[in-house]
Amino acid sequence: MGRTPLRHMMKRTVAEPAPPVRVQDIWERYRPDLEAVEARLGEHLTSDVALVGEVARYILGSGGKRFRPLLLAAASRLAGTTPDPADPADPVAVLGCVVEYIHTATLLHDDVVDDGRVRRGRDAARTVWGNAGSVLVGDYLYARALSLSVTLDRLEIVRVLAGVVEEMSEGEVFQLSVCGDVDLSEATYLRIVERKTASLMSAACRLGGMLGRVSPRMQGALADFGRDVGIAFQVADDTLDYQGDTDVFGKALCKDLEDGKITLPLLYTLLRCTPEERDRLVGVIETDGEPHAAERAFVLDRMRHYGGITDALARARDFAAKAKASLAAAFPDGPDRQALLALADYVVERDR
Amino acid sequence: MGRTPLRHMMKRTVAEPAPPVRVQDIWERYRPDLEAVEARLGEHLTSDVALVGEVARYILGSGGKRFRPLLLAAASRLAGTTPDPADPADPVAVLGCVVEYIHTATLLHDDVVDDGRVRRGRDAARTVWGNAGSVLVGDYLYARALSLSVTLDRLEIVRVLAGVVEEMSEGEVFQLSVCGDVDLSEATYLRIVERKTASLMSAACRLGGMLGRVSPRMQGALADFGRDVGIAFQVADDTLDYQGDTDVFGKALCKDLEDGKITLPLLYTLLRCTPEERDRLVGVIETDGEPHAAERAFVLDRMRHYGGITDALARARDFAAKAKASLAAAFPDGPDRQALLALADYVVERDR
Repeated sequence: MGRTPLRHMMKRTVAEPAPPVRVQDIWERYRPDLEAVEARLGEHLTSDVALVGEVARYILGSGGKRFRPLLLAAASRLAGTTPDPADPADPVAVLGCVVEYIHTATLLHDDVVDDGRVRRGRDAARTVWGNAGSVLVGDYLYARALSLSVTLDRLEIVRVLAGVVEEMSEGEVFQLSVCGDVDLSEATYLRIVERKTASLMSAACRLGGMLGRVSPRMQGALADFGRDVGIAFQVADDTLDYQGDTDVFGKALCKDLEDGKITLPLLYTLLRCTPEERDRLVGVIETDGEPHAAERAFVLDRMRHYGGITDALARARDFAAKAKASLAAAFPDGPDRQALLALADYVVERDR
Repeated sequence: MGRTPLRHMMKRTVAEPAPPVRVQDIWERYRPDLEAVEARLGEHLTSDVALVGEVARYILGSGGKRFRPLLLAAASRLAGTTPDPADPADPVAVLGCVVEYIHTATLLHDDVVDDGRVRRGRDAARTVWGNAGSVLVGDYLYARALSLSVTLDRLEIVRVLAGVVEEMSEGEVFQLSVCGDVDLSEATYLRIVERKTASLMSAACRLGGMLGRVSPRMQGALADFGRDVGIAFQVADDTLDYQGDTDVFGKALCKDLEDGKITLPLLYTLLRCTPEERDRLVGVIETDGEPHAAERAFVLDRMRHYGGITDALARARDFAAKAKASLAAAFPDGPDRQALLALADYVVERDR
C-alpha cells in the first residue's frame, strides 16, 4: 500500500460516497482474522490455577461479538498489514486477544462495581464465583494482556495499552464520582464515555496503524476514528437501557436509572422538562433500588415526550459521522476503509 | 563495583559472618532513596479525576513501611547504582513508586476479596468508598504503575512487572480456590505464598539488579533472595494472625481462620492433632463468620500444644537463611549486602 503520495487519490475518494457495505459482509471479510483471535483466546490462558481459566473462559465464551478485535483487524489491514492466521505470534491475532482480554477484564470489574447479577443474558461471573473471583480474574486478564503485548517487543505498543487501562479506570472512577449528580453536563458525560469506552476502541484502531507502521498522521486519524466510533457506540448503548427488554439485549431495563447513572437520554430529559417533572425525576434517580413501575413509566414517558432517546441517537450519529470524516480524510478508498466506515454506522444502528 | 572477578573476594567474605546491622540503621542508610519515593508517590497521581487521588492517597498514606521500595533501593545500590534523589526521573525512585503502587493496588483488591473492613488499624478504603472505589482505584494504580515503568524505556523491566502482576493475581485466585480446603498441603500453601506475596519482593530485588546492569547470575541471585525473603515475610505474617491483637498490628485476630484461609500454623496443627481434635478444628474452619470465643480458644490452645506457630516461624527462618545464602554466594560483602542480609532476618522477627 502506498503510504505518502495519497493526496491526489484522497481528493477523489473523499468526494465519492462509500458504497454500502452490509454488516455480515464485514464479519465475513475479517472472519479468518477473528477466527485466529478466537483460537488463541483460550490458548493463552494456560494458568495452572484451574479457577483462572474457568472464570476467564466463562466470560470470554458468553457471546461477546469481538468488536474490538474486529476494529483492530480492519485497521491493521487498512494500514497495509497482511495477517497470517497460521502464525501463532501473528501480531494482529495477538493484539486482538490483548484488546479482548482488557475488555473482558473491565466487564468482570464492572459487574462488581455495579453489583450486576446478569451479563449478556446469563449469570454474571460474580453471581457464580463471587466478587473475589471477578476482581482477581479481572486483574489476571489485565496483566496477561500487558504481558502478551510485551511479547511483540515494541515499547510504544505497551505504552498505548498501559495508558488505555489507566484511562479506562479513570473514566470508571469519574463515573462513580458523579453518580446521581442530576446536574451532570453533556460535556462531562461525554468525557466519561470517551475514557471508559472509547479509549480502548481508539487504541484498537491506533494499534492497527502501528502494526502497519503508517505515518503518525494516519495513526492519529485511526485513533480519532476509533474514539468517535467508541463514543457513538456507548451513547447508542445507553439508549438501549431505555428501549429494549432483558430477552433482547441481556441487560435489565432501566438499569442505569436504578444505579443513578445519568446517561444522555435522561440528561436531555432533565434539561428540558418542567421544574415539577424534574423534581419527580430526581426523586426516582435518588431512590435506591429498582424504581416502581409507575415511576419507571413516568420516566420513559417524559423521555419520549422530550425526545431524549431520539436526540441521544442523533448525537451518536454525529460522532459516527465525525469518525468517518477522520478516516476518509487520511486513507484512500478501498474495502478496508469501506468496512470501517460501515462499522461506524453499525454501532449506532445495531439492535443490541 | 567490580562485576565479574568476584570469586576470590567471595570465598573470603562468605566465610565471615556479616556484622550485625540494626534495622533502624538500614532505614537510615536508605532514607534519601525512600524520601525520593515518598515525594513522588503523590506527584504521579495527577489524575484530573479527584476521587482517584483521594482514594489512592488515603491508602498510600495509611502507614505502609515502603518495604518493597526499600528492597529495591538496597538491591540497586548493591548492584552498583547511585540513585540521584534530585532527579525526577531517577529510575530507583520511579521503580520504587511502581512497586509500591502495585502493592497498594493488591491491598485495595484484597479488601474487596476478603470483605475486609479494617486495614492497618483504620477503615479499609472499601468501608469508606465501597467496593467500587477500591476495585477501580486498584485498577488505576496497576495501570499507572505499568505506564510509569514504560517511561524507563526498557522493555525487559515492563516484562518483569507485567509478569509479577499476573503471578500475584494467579496466587490470589489459587488461594481462593483452595479456601477452606483442610487437606491443603504445605507445598501448595508455599506456592500460593510465593506467588501472591514473594513474587513482588523478588521483582523489586531483581529490578535493582537490572538497574545496575549486573550479570544475569547476579540478577537471578537477587530474585532468589527477594523470593525467599518474601516467603519468610508472609509465613511470619500468617503467624501474627494467631498471636497479636488488633491494637498492635491493625488486623483482627484469627481473621484467616474466620475467612477459612488455611495458613501454616493451622496447617501444622491439622496434620498433628488427633482425629477428634481435627473434626472440631474442621468444624470451626467451615463455620461462616467469626468463631465463638470457646472455639477460637480451642484452636489457639491446640496450635500452641502442637507447636503450630513455633514451627511456622522456624520455617520462615529457613527461608530467611536460604535468602541470605543466595545473596552471599553472589555478591561480595559490603554495607548494602549487610543491609539486605539483616532485612531477611527482620521480616521474621518484626513484631508486625
